[in-house]
Amino acid sequence: MAETRALASYLVTSRIEEIPQDVRHEARRALVNYVGCAVGGSPHTAVDRALRALGPYSGPPTASVLGRAERLDPLHASLMNGISSHVYDYDDTTPKNYIHPSSPVASALFAYASAHRVSGRDFALAFILGFEAESRIGNAVYPAHYDAGWHITGTAGVFGAAAAIGKLLRLPLQEMVWALGLAATQAAGLREMFGSMAKSFHPGRSAQNGYAAALLAEAGFTAGERSLEGARGFAAVQASEFDLAKITAGLGVDFDLRANTYKPFPCGIVNHPAIDAAIQLHHEHRLTAAAIRAVRLRVAPLVLDLCNQRGITRGLQGKFSVYHGAAVGLVRGKAGLAEYTDEAVNDPDIRRVREAATATGDASLTEDQAHVEVELADGRTVSRLVEQSLGNVQRPMSDGQLDDKFREQAVLALPPEQVEALLDLCWRIDELEDVNELVQTGVPAPVGRPS
Amino acid sequence: MAETRALASYLVTSRIEEIPQDVRHEARRALVNYVGCAVGGSPHTAVDRALRALGPYSGPPTASVLGRAERLDPLHASLMNGISSHVYDYDDTTPKNYIHPSSPVASALFAYASAHRVSGRDFALAFILGFEAESRIGNAVYPAHYDAGWHITGTAGVFGAAAAIGKLLRLPLQEMVWALGLAATQAAGLREMFGSMAKSFHPGRSAQNGYAAALLAEAGFTAGERSLEGARGFAAVQASEFDLAKITAGLGVDFDLRANTYKPFPCGIVNHPAIDAAIQLHHEHRLTAAAIRAVRLRVAPLVLDLCNQRGITRGLQGKFSVYHGAAVGLVRGKAGLAEYTDEAVNDPDIRRVREAATATGDASLTEDQAHVEVELADGRTVSRLVEQSLGNVQRPMSDGQLDDKFREQAVLALPPEQVEALLDLCWRIDELEDVNELVQTGVPAPVGRPS
Repeated sequence: MAETRALASYLVTSRIEEIPQDVRHEARRALVNYVGCAVGGSPHTAVDRALRALGPYSGPPTASVLGRAERLDPLHASLMNGISSHVYDYDDTTPKNYIHPSSPVASALFAYASAHRVSGRDFALAFILGFEAESRIGNAVYPAHYDAGWHITGTAGVFGAAAAIGKLLRLPLQEMVWALGLAATQAAGLREMFGSMAKSFHPGRSAQNGYAAALLAEAGFTAGERSLEGARGFAAVQASEFDLAKITAGLGVDFDLRANTYKPFPCGIVNHPAIDAAIQLHHEHRLTAAAIRAVRLRVAPLVLDLCNQRGITRGLQGKFSVYHGAAVGLVRGKAGLAEYTDEAVNDPDIRRVREAATATGDASLTEDQAHVEVELADGRTVSRLVEQSLGNVQRPMSDGQLDDKFREQAVLALPPEQVEALLDLCWRIDELEDVNELVQTGVPAPVGRPS
Repeated sequence: MAETRALASYLVTSRIEEIPQDVRHEARRALVNYVGCAVGGSPHTAVDRALRALGPYSGPPTASVLGRAERLDPLHASLMNGISSHVYDYDDTTPKNYIHPSSPVASALFAYASAHRVSGRDFALAFILGFEAESRIGNAVYPAHYDAGWHITGTAGVFGAAAAIGKLLRLPLQEMVWALGLAATQAAGLREMFGSMAKSFHPGRSAQNGYAAALLAEAGFTAGERSLEGARGFAAVQASEFDLAKITAGLGVDFDLRANTYKPFPCGIVNHPAIDAAIQLHHEHRLTAAAIRAVRLRVAPLVLDLCNQRGITRGLQGKFSVYHGAAVGLVRGKAGLAEYTDEAVNDPDIRRVREAATATGDASLTEDQAHVEVELADGRTVSRLVEQSLGNVQRPMSDGQLDDKFREQAVLALPPEQVEALLDLCWRIDELEDVNELVQTGVPAPVGRPS
């Protein structure tokens, strides 16, 4: 059977009872991480500007945006959720294809669930299926597609959102095939946008466009039937090499959610081992900026492909500078949201250490490894090799660490007691009768509402 | 200077006084042709379904859709204009890059002008600049981009819409650079959709997304600065070979509008020479279906790449079947809208002749040429070679032929006297104080309004 129809058939027929318990728990972890990122990113200027530009074009305000008081139509709410949840580059990653998978799918689903009654069970199933569709389509075209310059979170993400919303809409098989087709023909997002607000626009637009694809398909708006495998379809057009079998192999048995990872640091994931090593050196040697003369990084070659930004002046650029990551780790001993602001990037101490750093690509290192060597002002040299970066599949963040990360972010938009209530609801999401209870706990109280 | 910034600079500074008169007349011809297509396509099922799916998500209904009574926000109106104007595959073509150029640009502009006061002069300038940006970006990546399977009307179109709306918004240089970046990162549309409603979705979504790109840029939503020429930018990612110099060479002096062409037949343009030959044979030999035993086509190889659909059952598929085009030309002596309905495709006489047709790719023929040979039931063989297809740059449709084509389409949605008034306004568009006068003449009278 052709891949498009086989995937659509699985999406249409799959039931929550068939999803293994460990996968359902990983879905909860992914959603805890996602909601923290979305709420934490919601006050960001990028969201303010997107709202200012597009808010006046919103339809009837039946939906909520996580972390924001504004109400929008569900399509625009999907866009805003996507921007906020990715703008700090703090969301999740499937390292096998470098997708940030939850944002496109969950951004659409929470927008939908804020406007329509959806049970936690239906929500969890739609999320798991959307995640799986997105990641498997990504697997089929990775790495050629990514190497060519596609932001795979945008291109694969639109399929995930279409699949998830299509599942909630209970699309029949033909309509699900069209929804995937309408997703395919909107698959977009260029890596040239990295370091600008447009990067976070990608999962947002994917969520919105995938949602619209499902609505159009439901209304009988037709699309190509072989959007994945056709001669002019997604794989052939957007990847010089691909393996379509990865879309369908082990469907319903193997779940990419099991390979999902959560970032301890809000920046490009390939920087993480160098940051991890730098933080360890800071604590072990009580480093200060003044003590550091030079920094030499050995990293996987991909790091220099993705995160080689120099001469940077903006926080968003810092996320794609392995030099900045190493500098904040060495000087401050941490790399949280406060280390990726415009202020942190322009901090003279950080800048000096960043500019004193060089990096070498070393093909003997994996993308979970880095070696950081620091030449000190007193003449000594200290170094650290990280072999498994914190947050990777072998060294995953614990549920408790995810709680801490959630709180660090959510307090930027919500009062502490609301943060705790929201966190509790996220862990219990698949027991909820109506997921809107969670969404409404994730938005600020309107001015004048009794607290 | 880098191409993105150079193009943005030209867009920002260009004035209507600098546009040559022949280019301004060609813009009028393009807009006459566009408005006829948009109004004629507006009752199509594809528009009905898109409205049913997305109308409930429209923002405040400040804008009109050509040919329709429904009012929507300007972004959704752009989408609907784009679908209606392309759904019959009857709109214009720049044969040097196979873009259908007016739809993405004009669909956004008419939506904008129905919601904001825009003079005809400003409208004409924005249209000419948007057309130029789109076509030049298309030239830079054609043919590798198109051959790979991109529907270039979608991918290049989004730049045209962003440039045109950005011009009306009077974006400064930096914001115009961002608008082009936000366009680049939404460039999408697969040829796998040909033969389905999703094909017409491409110019519609391009119009809507380019419009949104300009709005976001205006609000300070940042994007990559080198979206065209960057290592991960549009050209490098979406074309295996490209020539960026084509974007800027002769800017302000050479205008691609001069190379625009208008279709005499509502189908894939590469079919046109075969249809033209078939119609000539019909009239010369008074052919009927019963008289035709076999049909042999010799066509440029690209025809078989694009329009080789067989075993077809739907009108939209007929547009991509050179066999269907030849069959209706031979049997009916014409190939108008009525020859591309589901009924026409399933007409037993047409089907028999279509199935009796074979085609050979012949590299000695240009894409403006075709040879049609018909074996008759009485044993004779007749044939015709077309060397310059009607509607091409060497044999352009006259202003009068464009009038006739406009009327054929517009009467499908508007009463005859309104059609004539609308046609008159289209020819005088750059004299209008407010282009909304034209748009309001292009929509049906609301029920109950005195006529």
